[in-house]
Amino acid sequence: MKTSTTPVDIQKAATSKIENTDFNNLAFGQVFTDHMMICDYKDGAWQTPKIQPYGPLEMDPSARVFHYGQAVFEGMKAFKDEEDQIWLFRPEDNFERINKSSERLAIPAFPKEFFFAGLEELLKLDKDWIKKGFGNSLYIRPFVIATEAGVSAAPAKEYKFMIICSPAQAYYSGEVRVKFSEEYSRAADGGVGFAKAAGNYAAQFYPTNLAKDEGFQQIIWTDANTHEYLEEAGTMNIFFRVGDKLITAPTSDRILDGVTRKSIIALAKEFNIDLEVRRVSVKEIVEAAKSGDLKEIFGSGTATVINPIVGFGHAGKKYDLPKLEDSYAGFFKDKLTKIQYNQAADKFNWRYQVK
Amino acid sequence: MKTSTTPVDIQKAATSKIENTDFNNLAFGQVFTDHMMICDYKDGAWQTPKIQPYGPLEMDPSARVFHYGQAVFEGMKAFKDEEDQIWLFRPEDNFERINKSSERLAIPAFPKEFFFAGLEELLKLDKDWIKKGFGNSLYIRPFVIATEAGVSAAPAKEYKFMIICSPAQAYYSGEVRVKFSEEYSRAADGGVGFAKAAGNYAAQFYPTNLAKDEGFQQIIWTDANTHEYLEEAGTMNIFFRVGDKLITAPTSDRILDGVTRKSIIALAKEFNIDLEVRRVSVKEIVEAAKSGDLKEIFGSGTATVINPIVGFGHAGKKYDLPKLEDSYAGFFKDKLTKIQYNQAADKFNWRYQVK
Repeated sequence: MKTSTTPVDIQKAATSKIENTDFNNLAFGQVFTDHMMICDYKDGAWQTPKIQPYGPLEMDPSARVFHYGQAVFEGMKAFKDEEDQIWLFRPEDNFERINKSSERLAIPAFPKEFFFAGLEELLKLDKDWIKKGFGNSLYIRPFVIATEAGVSAAPAKEYKFMIICSPAQAYYSGEVRVKFSEEYSRAADGGVGFAKAAGNYAAQFYPTNLAKDEGFQQIIWTDANTHEYLEEAGTMNIFFRVGDKLITAPTSDRILDGVTRKSIIALAKEFNIDLEVRRVSVKEIVEAAKSGDLKEIFGSGTATVINPIVGFGHAGKKYDLPKLEDSYAGFFKDKLTKIQYNQAADKFNWRYQVK
Repeated sequence: MKTSTTPVDIQKAATSKIENTDFNNLAFGQVFTDHMMICDYKDGAWQTPKIQPYGPLEMDPSARVFHYGQAVFEGMKAFKDEEDQIWLFRPEDNFERINKSSERLAIPAFPKEFFFAGLEELLKLDKDWIKKGFGNSLYIRPFVIATEAGVSAAPAKEYKFMIICSPAQAYYSGEVRVKFSEEYSRAADGGVGFAKAAGNYAAQFYPTNLAKDEGFQQIIWTDANTHEYLEEAGTMNIFFRVGDKLITAPTSDRILDGVTRKSIIALAKEFNIDLEVRRVSVKEIVEAAKSGDLKEIFGSGTATVINPIVGFGHAGKKYDLPKLEDSYAGFFKDKLTKIQYNQAADKFNWRYQVK
């Protein structure tokens, strides 16, 4: 996309924090780059995007986002190849999805040319924060918040669309055991589960804390009506390998349409891996675990890429998964990251160069 | 409650905005008093509550509330009687409920003595903003937001508990027609519908906009599984009068335990009004509307007190409700407001004097 016609007001930081940043000890999402992108919505229109030094926002205590959760976000990554070229992975999908999320939360759509112009100028300014080497990346967080003052429960007339960036190393959260939810729910039919709505995330913290007390790190959410079907993990979509067959739930108004998820589906088709996109019952997975047919469970998401799961719990019982030499998780992670880092051919045109 | 032992750091505003406030033309929740209460949570504890001039907050762009919606709130009112005495209505119920909401959102509980000490000091400082006269009140908005910087999807370690106040006139939103939801949902079983979680509110904006396009002002949410049972209106609980019988849905993990709702239930018992707290089916209400047995629908909530509804829509049809001389809505509103304004006996001990 040509972005040269979209003006972006740029105010550079006087000094850089990069010398004080230990790139070998990065906790996820804790350190931010020197700049941020801000675009205000007021008087019925998105104003000129601005890039300015990363720093605090002044917010009225009655701002809508604090009271009514009118906020959505995205997660993306930028990668640097061995020739110092900067690459994004399917950024148009993130752009389209944030506007889908916004629509469901009654937030005005953000213009595509503003998104790409602002994002690319920001990445070029902060390019030194993107480190070469497998596993290194720049995590990109676009988000929209309702900033209008006033505590009436109605859509705001003022918003901020922002992009902040945080350098990241390979995401490793230790061995992950998941609990299949039997009581708590993430999303209702006809609700906002498909959107990256802020409120979807806080709603998972308490049940996840309870699961942690039982020795699990995450929850696989089941359908709220029956708790009989496995849906997603809140920050990841979920894949199950039974024998050599890969199964994942279809997207719906409860399940996020993950970019990594659909990339895995495309790769599975390319490499003739038997894949079924259909409802996945708790019963079949428990039975497959008992019979030994359940080979893998893994999560997929931008931050984690592919997150292998070592075991799960259901109905008071814990099940371990086998350790595989040739896992699908490893296979897809290798294929995906090589495309992301410009080390493999990109037959699907997923890479997007920032230059 | 004795609050004299709880210290509150008070910094008074240099000037008051009250002279510039037109108390005869107040839009709900748009004007705020001179002061606000702030209490920070850090290092595992709530710090000393502070009262300071109302003004903007400085927030890191990565603050959890912007990304993960970790935020809850309450709504209360203060009233002034003819002797300039200040009264709250069942404030302990709001206090208990905000901690229930917080627990579900993995936010640390707020100490009761901090709540009442901060609230009462704030009301005493801003007492001139509470105007006498039926319908006038001070709307009080306690809320908690996750302020910790960092975009990892986990409960924050830093929060702000705040109270802001806005002078209010009688809440009149015009004739209200409601749509019974057939597609969209507010809450899932096992979700956060019972909590005053910020994200519950933004999730309603888009479906409500669609309903407005069809000529309705609000939605009555139905159960997400079947859409066959009427639950609540998002900012109000809902009562139906069929013949002389009053019916309202039981509270659940999807339905807010409204203070006004339970006050109406208590008053109905006191005055021997036939009341059933049970599931209310769409089918029975539509049939009662057709037969003429449906006499009233009204909403109940702190901001609105009692909000009579003039008609509803379902399955593409619109139904009008009769205009009654002796409505239950009018009866309960009279009883409730007289107690709130210290013009009637308070046999349930609902009033709480601030002095």
